[in-house]
Amino acid sequence: MKLWTGLLAGAALAIIGTGVMAQNARPPAPANAAPERQRPAGPPPNTLGDGPWDVQGWDAKLHVEVVTKGLDHPWGMAFLPDGGILVTERPGRLRLIRNGVLDPQPIEGLPTIYATGISGLTDIVLDPNFASNHLIYISYSKPAPDTPPGTNPAQTDATLAVMRAKWDGAHKLTEVKDILVADAWYGKPPLPEKCCGQGPASGSFGGRLALDGEGHLFVTSGDRNFGEKVQDPSNHFGKILRINLDGTPAKDNPFAGRAGYKADIWSTGHRNQLGLFYDAPTGRLWETEFGPRGGDEINLITKGGNYGWIDVTQGNHYNNEPSHKGIRGVAGYIDPVWAFPPSGNPGNVAIYRGKLFPQWQGDLLVVNMSRPPALIRMKLSPEGHVVASESLLTNLNQRLRDVRVGPDGAIYILTDETAGAVLKITPGS
Amino acid sequence: MKLWTGLLAGAALAIIGTGVMAQNARPPAPANAAPERQRPAGPPPNTLGDGPWDVQGWDAKLHVEVVTKGLDHPWGMAFLPDGGILVTERPGRLRLIRNGVLDPQPIEGLPTIYATGISGLTDIVLDPNFASNHLIYISYSKPAPDTPPGTNPAQTDATLAVMRAKWDGAHKLTEVKDILVADAWYGKPPLPEKCCGQGPASGSFGGRLALDGEGHLFVTSGDRNFGEKVQDPSNHFGKILRINLDGTPAKDNPFAGRAGYKADIWSTGHRNQLGLFYDAPTGRLWETEFGPRGGDEINLITKGGNYGWIDVTQGNHYNNEPSHKGIRGVAGYIDPVWAFPPSGNPGNVAIYRGKLFPQWQGDLLVVNMSRPPALIRMKLSPEGHVVASESLLTNLNQRLRDVRVGPDGAIYILTDETAGAVLKITPGS
Repeated sequence: MKLWTGLLAGAALAIIGTGVMAQNARPPAPANAAPERQRPAGPPPNTLGDGPWDVQGWDAKLHVEVVTKGLDHPWGMAFLPDGGILVTERPGRLRLIRNGVLDPQPIEGLPTIYATGISGLTDIVLDPNFASNHLIYISYSKPAPDTPPGTNPAQTDATLAVMRAKWDGAHKLTEVKDILVADAWYGKPPLPEKCCGQGPASGSFGGRLALDGEGHLFVTSGDRNFGEKVQDPSNHFGKILRINLDGTPAKDNPFAGRAGYKADIWSTGHRNQLGLFYDAPTGRLWETEFGPRGGDEINLITKGGNYGWIDVTQGNHYNNEPSHKGIRGVAGYIDPVWAFPPSGNPGNVAIYRGKLFPQWQGDLLVVNMSRPPALIRMKLSPEGHVVASESLLTNLNQRLRDVRVGPDGAIYILTDETAGAVLKITPGS
Repeated sequence: MKLWTGLLAGAALAIIGTGVMAQNARPPAPANAAPERQRPAGPPPNTLGDGPWDVQGWDAKLHVEVVTKGLDHPWGMAFLPDGGILVTERPGRLRLIRNGVLDPQPIEGLPTIYATGISGLTDIVLDPNFASNHLIYISYSKPAPDTPPGTNPAQTDATLAVMRAKWDGAHKLTEVKDILVADAWYGKPPLPEKCCGQGPASGSFGGRLALDGEGHLFVTSGDRNFGEKVQDPSNHFGKILRINLDGTPAKDNPFAGRAGYKADIWSTGHRNQLGLFYDAPTGRLWETEFGPRGGDEINLITKGGNYGWIDVTQGNHYNNEPSHKGIRGVAGYIDPVWAFPPSGNPGNVAIYRGKLFPQWQGDLLVVNMSRPPALIRMKLSPEGHVVASESLLTNLNQRLRDVRVGPDGAIYILTDETAGAVLKITPGS
């Protein structure tokens, strides 16, 4: 793929160049199109203070501190063996935090990123053998190859991809290669008529990654606001995939060998899945996804499960069209473990199994981008049902994109803001 | 029992006379005693406006109106065949609403009520054959018989009782008889030492009533803030009872014939259960109860179930003593379907099966007395787990005590305020 080397020095590698150009170049939204839910109307967001903040939770005191500011829409993070953190910035940069300090120089070598609206550089995981092989995997929105620079992103096809790269531990990626290019190329006009008041093709890529500890990678591939494609098993729109680290379909996938089915599909019926977590002790795969207007979900993903989109949703279609097959309890479709009304705008999800918060063992943590945004903690029954819920950090009024439990047992959060930050939560006193 | 006839005309029949005298007569709370949670510290409550209010819910528009004001801590209500409503007032009055108008003259004939703090006249149900026999059942806090008038309520024993009475349809009760006097007499000093910073004996009577449609009455009998008594099956502290309408233990109760067990016990391990609803189509008995500090619960009550109090709770004891046997998942004790952190102060509960809100069919409704108080609507999975939750009516900032689905499919709510009211919710436009 092309590397826009002329733009390497500190700039986003985007098909259009800078994010600003992308915004200017987009055509006006069609009537009744879905908002991208990037930022709801209302008062401007609060500026994040310097902290720290001491918060009293239900059964724990929390100490919340800022690890670093200076990140633009940080999207995913990976904890390095030496205590550092790799963080992706959605506009198209890979950053390093070492000893609590953000390296001002981005890591170079990324491919061309389709960075517009809510799309761009998304999630990151380390290879299980990273300590020896220095390989990392990053998901991103990928423009059609050979798209001329300066092309309006609304005039080109794009899809979700996952790259693998070798990192030198400093500022360089080499051996960069796509291991997955989702069969969800879409976006170049003319676009087909779509139902339900769905939004633009430049959104809903999914992009979360999760390793299962056995050499397989789960990948969320969003519906691209073209929900009619989702129930078709021969493409990657609105699917969760399970692949080997070389990109081939993992063994024992549910539809392996079935004609008309992509072999790497693990589950289907999804919309825009911005949260994914594999809980090794239970073998459970937890997911979050956005509904249209309301009906945002927390799902427990099972092998071969069909989660209903576009035909079954607890949300309301943007044009108020009724849900085609129903709201809940429709045979053949799996309902969410939790639905957020009126909406929940959920980001990433995690199960707490660290050593710092004994009262939180096994609890589900999910962050969101609502107003006011929260870190939500949910207690689960043994069967995985939500039995209690508390909301934290609303005082910060920062959209929250990612939540992870660090190797140190602290809880790390990325804020989804232009003036973005990494937050860290440890027990308070 | 004595009828304080001299006080009949429009006054509360309380052991101490008026509510004011009761408050003045109470001794100061012991150090570290639990607050009665009658009214949390903070700004004075909002005055209820005149309405109506139009509220946009997740998937329904609500029209909220005031049926009547002028009630003092209304606690329970029953819908009459002619469209009227009988309402209890906690200080000790029974009132009638007819044609949407509150009859200024209370119904006379009640026995002596132990009305102090959060105790008094509580719930009401109509006999299944009320249309012909005019019988009603009312729960109340009952003082020890022959207690001289003017006795400080903190100096007397009291218990939960259920009376049956015949109502003439106007202002008179006759044939008033206790069908149940709970074996939970308690309160007269000297009181034993208690663990856990528990509150005064004048609280935690329970008092909710629910008919099962087969001639049986469920009754919640609270722990009286003497939780050490609850796990003992030979008394009525912290139990749910199932009795016939003559007060005898119902047939097929779980501990019938077992030595050392009260035959009318249906379930045990409860604290202060202020919500109860029997859902005939599913046969499910839903309950709410307060935890100590936090850990308020929604429970699905099963025959013979042990709900854990005082040994298992998700709340914190008032003196910060750790929970004796655990928080959740303790063998032999049933966890709540839902726990409210930080606290939920739940009142009554209902399952919506009316005809006015099709999107709410089968959903659970619970009201609460938190700040701000809410009508909470929860969607349930087929197995009875909560899968979504929304909070409504917080704009009114009125503590909410009772919620019922009327025969007309409207939702009726009682506010737990000195300036109390009946609210009615129908679909908005």
